[in-house]
Amino acid sequence: MPQVSQKGTQMPESPIRKLVPFAEIAKKKGHKVYHLNIGQPDIKTPEVALEAIKNNTVKILEYSHSAGFESYRTKLAASYQANGVNVDTADIIITTGGSEALMFALGSTMDAGDEIIIPEPFYANYNGFSVASGVTVVPVISTLEEGFALPPIADFEKLITPKTKAVLICNPGNPTGYLYTQEEIQQLADLVKKHDLFLIADEVYREFTYDGDKHYSVMNIPGIEQNAIMIDSVSKRYSMCGARIGCIVSKNKEVMATAMKFAQARLSPPTFAQIASEAALETPQSYFDEVITEYRGRRDILVSELTKIEGVKVATPKGAFYCIAKLPIDNADKFAQWLLESFDYNGETVMVAPAAGFYSTPNVGLTEIRIAYVLKQEDLIRSVAILKKAIEQYNNK
Amino acid sequence: MPQVSQKGTQMPESPIRKLVPFAEIAKKKGHKVYHLNIGQPDIKTPEVALEAIKNNTVKILEYSHSAGFESYRTKLAASYQANGVNVDTADIIITTGGSEALMFALGSTMDAGDEIIIPEPFYANYNGFSVASGVTVVPVISTLEEGFALPPIADFEKLITPKTKAVLICNPGNPTGYLYTQEEIQQLADLVKKHDLFLIADEVYREFTYDGDKHYSVMNIPGIEQNAIMIDSVSKRYSMCGARIGCIVSKNKEVMATAMKFAQARLSPPTFAQIASEAALETPQSYFDEVITEYRGRRDILVSELTKIEGVKVATPKGAFYCIAKLPIDNADKFAQWLLESFDYNGETVMVAPAAGFYSTPNVGLTEIRIAYVLKQEDLIRSVAILKKAIEQYNNK
Ligand SMILES: Cc1ncc(COP(=O)(O)O)c(C=O)c1O
Ligand SMILES: Cc1ncc(COP(=O)(O)O)c(C=O)c1O
Repeated sequence: MPQVSQKGTQMPESPIRKLVPFAEIAKKKGHKVYHLNIGQPDIKTPEVALEAIKNNTVKILEYSHSAGFESYRTKLAASYQANGVNVDTADIIITTGGSEALMFALGSTMDAGDEIIIPEPFYANYNGFSVASGVTVVPVISTLEEGFALPPIADFEKLITPKTKAVLICNPGNPTGYLYTQEEIQQLADLVKKHDLFLIADEVYREFTYDGDKHYSVMNIPGIEQNAIMIDSVSKRYSMCGARIGCIVSKNKEVMATAMKFAQARLSPPTFAQIASEAALETPQSYFDEVITEYRGRRDILVSELTKIEGVKVATPKGAFYCIAKLPIDNADKFAQWLLESFDYNGETVMVAPAAGFYSTPNVGLTEIRIAYVLKQEDLIRSVAILKKAIEQYNNK
Repeated sequence: MPQVSQKGTQMPESPIRKLVPFAEIAKKKGHKVYHLNIGQPDIKTPEVALEAIKNNTVKILEYSHSAGFESYRTKLAASYQANGVNVDTADIIITTGGSEALMFALGSTMDAGDEIIIPEPFYANYNGFSVASGVTVVPVISTLEEGFALPPIADFEKLITPKTKAVLICNPGNPTGYLYTQEEIQQLADLVKKHDLFLIADEVYREFTYDGDKHYSVMNIPGIEQNAIMIDSVSKRYSMCGARIGCIVSKNKEVMATAMKFAQARLSPPTFAQIASEAALETPQSYFDEVITEYRGRRDILVSELTKIEGVKVATPKGAFYCIAKLPIDNADKFAQWLLESFDYNGETVMVAPAAGFYSTPNVGLTEIRIAYVLKQEDLIRSVAILKKAIEQYNNK
């Protein structure tokens, strides 16, 4: 019997996937499970996008241009410009989600055995994309104590080898909710410039900032035009995760020409989803204002409720819709499983993502969980109450 | 300035892409260009699929299951069974086009440096997917003289090394239009069984057969359940290329579990497109009957017109909607460019795909072109008339 690839064997499983059978158990018991574990927003998709799909006039559902609709790219560039991000039509290739944009970025810049430095904890699928591309992830630790701020540049420099090709950041961060300051972005810019590296910035949560803080895009830093690659997506911005539309953006012509070859091989991004995404550019500002207000409210409630639990530590997220909480327990993997398998509080429990899966270094973050605040406020309050009871009961077992 | 990857440099460009600027020239001159070069059908998408999109009730466009809608997979399995192909729900992962299914198949079965044997000429993007996966393509030549039948098994065996992991076939073939006989499929089955290889069969043109010939799926060969991987797609079947829905199918549980990890990393296939594809399963048989009748008519016209040109040789396609023609010219690349740049017949010309790009062996197929018969019959007749004039004029330059 022929064997699967080593690469396939090494492909990591999602840190949440392991818990799915236990969630089934909880549901079979009739327990209500609050899902704090997923990045799927509960926010409605803008009407203007959904209407465009309903009113589409497609007769032959054709391949689009491999870089995506020209009309969409042009409007998207204009929208970046309007938001102060320096991007032209030619700098954009539309992809099948930010996920594919990440694959194209790795494929275009790195060969098998090359190294990419990523501040951890990081979005777990960076591991999968790296394994699929044969690339080695070199983590640099950021800590809850420092609020997941950028690790000292000296820590990065220590990790640079001749095989290092890129630094990858997520800004604002999943799972940390951290938003890099202008100074931090500038430090990274100086670093990649000095060592001739690519700076890949996953900015799919760019709109989600809460305290009047400004998001600084790598596309706006003078002097690193040839180094900077931006990853973006409509998934979270418009609560259109199922569209599967994102983009890879760079002013480096060679990178774009290379990414284009990957894009041509897979023919085109999805047509209906592009129709929706192009229409979504007309989403009124009021939609975003409401969404941001809602998320800010959730964040505030979540953080204030969590910090009321004795022994829990949280780094207040400045962006995105995740936060990492350190719990007074022995092991978050065990705890998360126990929550589903053996616990309930009046017939209810919570599902959380153990944070160890977001670290690449072994045995780090073992008592941390990631919470996604994609539930309405009353459910968040209820979830934290359940969590509080659970911690007590778990520690008194 | 940081450099792009070697892999990126090696990524091939589409054999047609090079001609695009010359097509622009022809259009600027006001010449009408008949496109014999593309695999985008002109056939209407089934109403039932388009209606499902218009009537969708999505409010939050969510990620779907990474393997695709459960409902779609179940109905798809039933539809395979109804067509005599032995496939269950658990054997299917829905992908973003057949393209992604091919990437998952390579990623799940092969590591960097491993070898895959492919009869050439073959679908040009197999090169791109192989380079992206770090896999080495080992071609085995099939010839126009033999109608692109399966090369002798001895030719395959000569090429097998310890690094050989799989044989990839396209059945029916793009660009050849060849349909493998049951005997040929059985020979391949014996080969992969004997040498413990995977047999990956790209069956995206499975419905397109013209002379009452039956299509033999690798899923139906007893004894190679652990070796066989089928690639499928809605792109051509329902003229839904822009949907970007396909699937990877195998009874090998380890392969499916591995492919699933790749699927999870990229989250999900497009939601709207799945709605359309699920609905498309209700397409009435009359739709296919009409489409096949149309393509058969086109094939017959095309082949009969082409063979009237002195010195032109064609292998009559038995399936798909492509054929390879050998022309009495010095070089098909030069000829194809000249057709667009310097030729017209009463203000009209044709765009063809030089076949060299479908061969992996250098300097093979240099006087061959691939013609896609995705134009209506009168346009095909007109196109061949233009081609005839062009060959005369080109050779008298
Ligand atoms: C940080 C980050 N990057 C990229 C993605 C990929 O999103 P998509 O492929 O839906 O655009 C996600 C999704 O959760 C994410 O959290
Ligand atoms: C032989 C073959 N395989 C796979 C594909 C990929 O098609 P898709 O990704 O649209 O399913 C094509 C498209 O032309 C093809 O001709």
